[in-house]
Amino acid sequence: MNSYLWIPLAGSLLSLLTGLFFATRITRLPVEHPAVADIGGHIQAGATAYLNRQYRTLALVALVLFVVLAVVPGLGLTTALWFVIGAVLSAAAGYIGMNVAVRANMRTAMAARKGLAAAFRVAVQGGAVTGLMVVGLGLLGVTALVWLTGAENNSALVGFGFGASLISVFARLGGGIYTKAADVGADLVGKVEAGIPEDDPRNPAVIADNVGDNVGDDAGMAADLFETYAVTAVAAILLGLLTPQFAGDARFVYFPLLLGAVGIVSSIVGVLATPPARPGAIMRALYQGALASGIVGTIGFFAVTRWLGLDMNLFYASLIGLGVTVAMIIITEYYTSANYRPVQNIAHASQTGHATNIIAGLAVGMRSTAVPALVIAVAILLAYNLAGLYGVAIAAMAMLSLTGIIVTMDAYGPITDNAGGLAEMADLEDSVREVTDQLDAVGNTTKAVTKGYAIGSAGLAALVLFASYVEELGKAGVEALAFDLGDPYVLAGLLIGGVLPFLFASMSMEAVGRAAFDVVEEVRRQFREIPGIMERKAKPDYGRAVDIVTRAALREMVLPGLIPVLGPIVVGLALGPKALGGLIVGSIVTGLFIAIQMTNGGGSWDNAKKYIEMGHYGGKGTEAHAAAVTGDTVGDPYKDTAGPAINPMIKIINIVALLIAPIVASLWL
Amino acid sequence: MNSYLWIPLAGSLLSLLTGLFFATRITRLPVEHPAVADIGGHIQAGATAYLNRQYRTLALVALVLFVVLAVVPGLGLTTALWFVIGAVLSAAAGYIGMNVAVRANMRTAMAARKGLAAAFRVAVQGGAVTGLMVVGLGLLGVTALVWLTGAENNSALVGFGFGASLISVFARLGGGIYTKAADVGADLVGKVEAGIPEDDPRNPAVIADNVGDNVGDDAGMAADLFETYAVTAVAAILLGLLTPQFAGDARFVYFPLLLGAVGIVSSIVGVLATPPARPGAIMRALYQGALASGIVGTIGFFAVTRWLGLDMNLFYASLIGLGVTVAMIIITEYYTSANYRPVQNIAHASQTGHATNIIAGLAVGMRSTAVPALVIAVAILLAYNLAGLYGVAIAAMAMLSLTGIIVTMDAYGPITDNAGGLAEMADLEDSVREVTDQLDAVGNTTKAVTKGYAIGSAGLAALVLFASYVEELGKAGVEALAFDLGDPYVLAGLLIGGVLPFLFASMSMEAVGRAAFDVVEEVRRQFREIPGIMERKAKPDYGRAVDIVTRAALREMVLPGLIPVLGPIVVGLALGPKALGGLIVGSIVTGLFIAIQMTNGGGSWDNAKKYIEMGHYGGKGTEAHAAAVTGDTVGDPYKDTAGPAINPMIKIINIVALLIAPIVASLWL
Repeated sequence: MNSYLWIPLAGSLLSLLTGLFFATRITRLPVEHPAVADIGGHIQAGATAYLNRQYRTLALVALVLFVVLAVVPGLGLTTALWFVIGAVLSAAAGYIGMNVAVRANMRTAMAARKGLAAAFRVAVQGGAVTGLMVVGLGLLGVTALVWLTGAENNSALVGFGFGASLISVFARLGGGIYTKAADVGADLVGKVEAGIPEDDPRNPAVIADNVGDNVGDDAGMAADLFETYAVTAVAAILLGLLTPQFAGDARFVYFPLLLGAVGIVSSIVGVLATPPARPGAIMRALYQGALASGIVGTIGFFAVTRWLGLDMNLFYASLIGLGVTVAMIIITEYYTSANYRPVQNIAHASQTGHATNIIAGLAVGMRSTAVPALVIAVAILLAYNLAGLYGVAIAAMAMLSLTGIIVTMDAYGPITDNAGGLAEMADLEDSVREVTDQLDAVGNTTKAVTKGYAIGSAGLAALVLFASYVEELGKAGVEALAFDLGDPYVLAGLLIGGVLPFLFASMSMEAVGRAAFDVVEEVRRQFREIPGIMERKAKPDYGRAVDIVTRAALREMVLPGLIPVLGPIVVGLALGPKALGGLIVGSIVTGLFIAIQMTNGGGSWDNAKKYIEMGHYGGKGTEAHAAAVTGDTVGDPYKDTAGPAINPMIKIINIVALLIAPIVASLWL
Repeated sequence: MNSYLWIPLAGSLLSLLTGLFFATRITRLPVEHPAVADIGGHIQAGATAYLNRQYRTLALVALVLFVVLAVVPGLGLTTALWFVIGAVLSAAAGYIGMNVAVRANMRTAMAARKGLAAAFRVAVQGGAVTGLMVVGLGLLGVTALVWLTGAENNSALVGFGFGASLISVFARLGGGIYTKAADVGADLVGKVEAGIPEDDPRNPAVIADNVGDNVGDDAGMAADLFETYAVTAVAAILLGLLTPQFAGDARFVYFPLLLGAVGIVSSIVGVLATPPARPGAIMRALYQGALASGIVGTIGFFAVTRWLGLDMNLFYASLIGLGVTVAMIIITEYYTSANYRPVQNIAHASQTGHATNIIAGLAVGMRSTAVPALVIAVAILLAYNLAGLYGVAIAAMAMLSLTGIIVTMDAYGPITDNAGGLAEMADLEDSVREVTDQLDAVGNTTKAVTKGYAIGSAGLAALVLFASYVEELGKAGVEALAFDLGDPYVLAGLLIGGVLPFLFASMSMEAVGRAAFDVVEEVRRQFREIPGIMERKAKPDYGRAVDIVTRAALREMVLPGLIPVLGPIVVGLALGPKALGGLIVGSIVTGLFIAIQMTNGGGSWDNAKKYIEMGHYGGKGTEAHAAAVTGDTVGDPYKDTAGPAINPMIKIINIVALLIAPIVASLWL
């Protein structure tokens, strides 16, 4: 093991230790309010129960796949083992992060008694645990992979990526269905039928709703970003290894790992440099942390490039990655924050009713895809012209090296959201809810930012992922296969690949609808069969509601989750390697746009509602507000289920294509 | 001129004469009810005034482009002249068809007094005028082009297509914005604020609403289908001319024209073979007519292939085109008719409110893209394997040869819709409204069918259009340029091309919103400033409302309409021919899905509302119905503005790429 590997190893351990440090610090904070501790305990238990059950289900799937991978010729036991390692690490990132999040929520609510700054610090540090676990475990896994297999074993790398992707697509889907089914179900009966406010403890689904924030927005998100990080790193390493011009020069293999190490230091600095939030400047404080990360990252990338004696063009390529990150943040902020025209236009359109609110939101979502597409296209061309395909891979890796700080900002969201729920349910002072509301208000934007960031990196890495596929075919003896747009098989693949995200998104949305229906039925049943709930004389059966959402989410995640697994297998076997190549690119092209449309559109609807609640156009209780609530509800499965699950879905398609490439090649050529 | 050309020439004249015959027959029918004649006259005047103004505006644009085309080296006066001919014929198809439609509506209302069968016949024959004008002028133009230029002048063909496309994108957009701005505007103030029913003569925008059906669903649709027909025929002829294996064999040039002639005979037979409609079997009667067309077409295609002595594989390729038509009709019917699960699910979801209705409708729209994508991909592969690229072109041409009967079914819609409006406004007996309601109920499906058909043919022809582009580059001296998916310029082009339909659709939807707002303001003003409207003591100023929508639609169509013109120019000049090739394919891939999603989604929302109005889930006046109305309103700009305009938009992108290919090639290579 050489010094190039010690550094990323040390970096990943530093990340895990810092995460552990924050975790200990937070869990040691006392929760001195019995009701908060009690309700928080329910949320904690529900979330853990869900994850346990989800991972038990997935463990079975993984076991089957382990056997399949182990016996398929050309893959074998090593691939199967790394598949398991990828899956376990992906699951662990979500598991640990979420376990801290369900504790940080209570502490944030308690700290809110002392004021905004104190609560903000707890929430940020709680989020940082998830963020640092994701990058720490991600870099650890990839470094170990390079170290132990010498990065020579292509299929071990692919197996690792497959494991991570498999967990992430189901975690995103299952978590996303859970959180929105509980949310929509609770709102439909609670707010609409029974007329009780959100987070009211009389609502039997209220705990499930809060559990959902954790299993969806924290654990699901963490698995997704772990996978994005791991797959991109693996792809960059493969290119460093296999690009003919680099022949034998190991520096190109280690460079992505070193960028990862720099990113970890930057993320830790960013968390520590995040200043205390002041009222009205919360997003600003988070951005200051991110900016500190970016500056440290830039310096570090420069140092690493110099130290390895690599061409400065590679440093510029890494800056392109940072540039895309900044651009995606600004674009997302513009389209989803209540401070700008798009969200205000939706709020304005709400005055003329539900339909005009929806039309405006749909239009904003669609329009918000334009600049990201342009940014990504230009970034690909710039990076390619600087340093070829490897330059594009480095730009993507540089972009994702900041995952630590980005996930911190994202995981901050469900913690403050839960803290607000706890304040409401435990009947804390109004000042607490005011603080958590302020903290939570920026959560929609930070959540949208991460999703745009994840899918944006997938777009940036599209060329690299496609190149890996061509590489796999090459290893299987298929050289110089042309994937020309004028080839009918390529076009057929593009069309079929392009339709998969549409099908996947529609099935995910319908899954939420069915699962929410189960929740509605259960809540109605409890109101009917348990007398005294409304008068606060009897407690609803929270556990049963949690149980029902759990089962519904696990049931509903299967069918959409199969699309990206079966799609490439069927197309590859039936139509051959050219169509399979087209399918990869087609799924990325439409997937990128649908994901951005859904996550930005959903975020903008949510904040348009908040904008009206701030008192515009008459505020709460008006027709405009009712219309905005409709938009928000439509946006829920958009932004929290279907949209974010598209990124891992695309990755699964890619990885499955890599896995079956040798078989397809042997059948067709 | 040889016999191969006489036949299509005779076919096109037969089509025009038959159209004229139906037109004369309809306009000779008396309108014996003064109120119907009066209101119908208002609609007629408003529609004509709009088209005149729209075409005047476009004439100016065309004049500028004429000069540009005439002076640009490599294009010249011939191209510019054929550009004008394409534009004039496209405009004429819409103009003549609509002029008969605004007369057929009154006659349909009058015939409805005699019963369903009589009214149905008038509406179908009225629609047939538009249908036969579209194919008659289309085939006439293309035949003349081949005859006069010997099909040797590539750029004359492209010029012709450009003229047709230019008119069609603006006619679809302008008409689509007009019809939905008037519809939404009239509904928002009339139904929602003033509480008066649809088509109530007290609503100042009621005439504009009925005008909209004609300028959007008839004239706009006709221009669109004219362009689709012309561009596909041109592309097939080009391939017949330029495919090296066919060298000098003129039969391949004339074959597409002969298919067109067969299609015209089939369409006329289909119209004549449409049986009288019986209650509950209206759609069935229309399908019987279409089936007759299909059978005659099949026999005719066989005869033509035999007569020319061509390979039978070309006959099979033409059958694939017919197969895609049948498939698109069945799929559209399934997703948009109240008889099947998708629409019923939306109706069911309406019970839990506006948001669940919207989510269900969005999901149906997205899901409805899957089977069409698969059908088109398989059709491309089959046709290609049968007879190469030319086989794909023949499949597309065979599909579009049936345009006559398909447009007849579509144009039937606005006529019956208007007839219902006239019955309401002129206060005819209830039995009349009952008849027109039955006739109109299938209009949503027939309208959706045509849109799916048009965009489906664009998908089928995608490979052919791309090949034309490669051909143009070849003529400019660029040989064997590879458009590999792994090339960053191709990928960047795919991404930018893929985002254009999203941007275009969102801008079109916002345009409807702004134009509708103008209508809302005007209707409110009239209610406020003209006393006695509500008591029927004073007449509203219909003309001013018509005038305001006219101006708003013309103003709003410009910006979205520029996207497909400027997009390829900017990308071609800035990023070169590979990116431009990617842009063509990218716009087709996402455009296909968005168009299908929007037109099917919109149709399903509309019919879900109608399903509830038939008495399900409590019928009118319930919360479920209110939610379904929201879905219907959201679906309006989806299915009647943005969705259908995507097909001409894609074509413009293609044609502009062809036009600038030589310039791009000289700059970049």
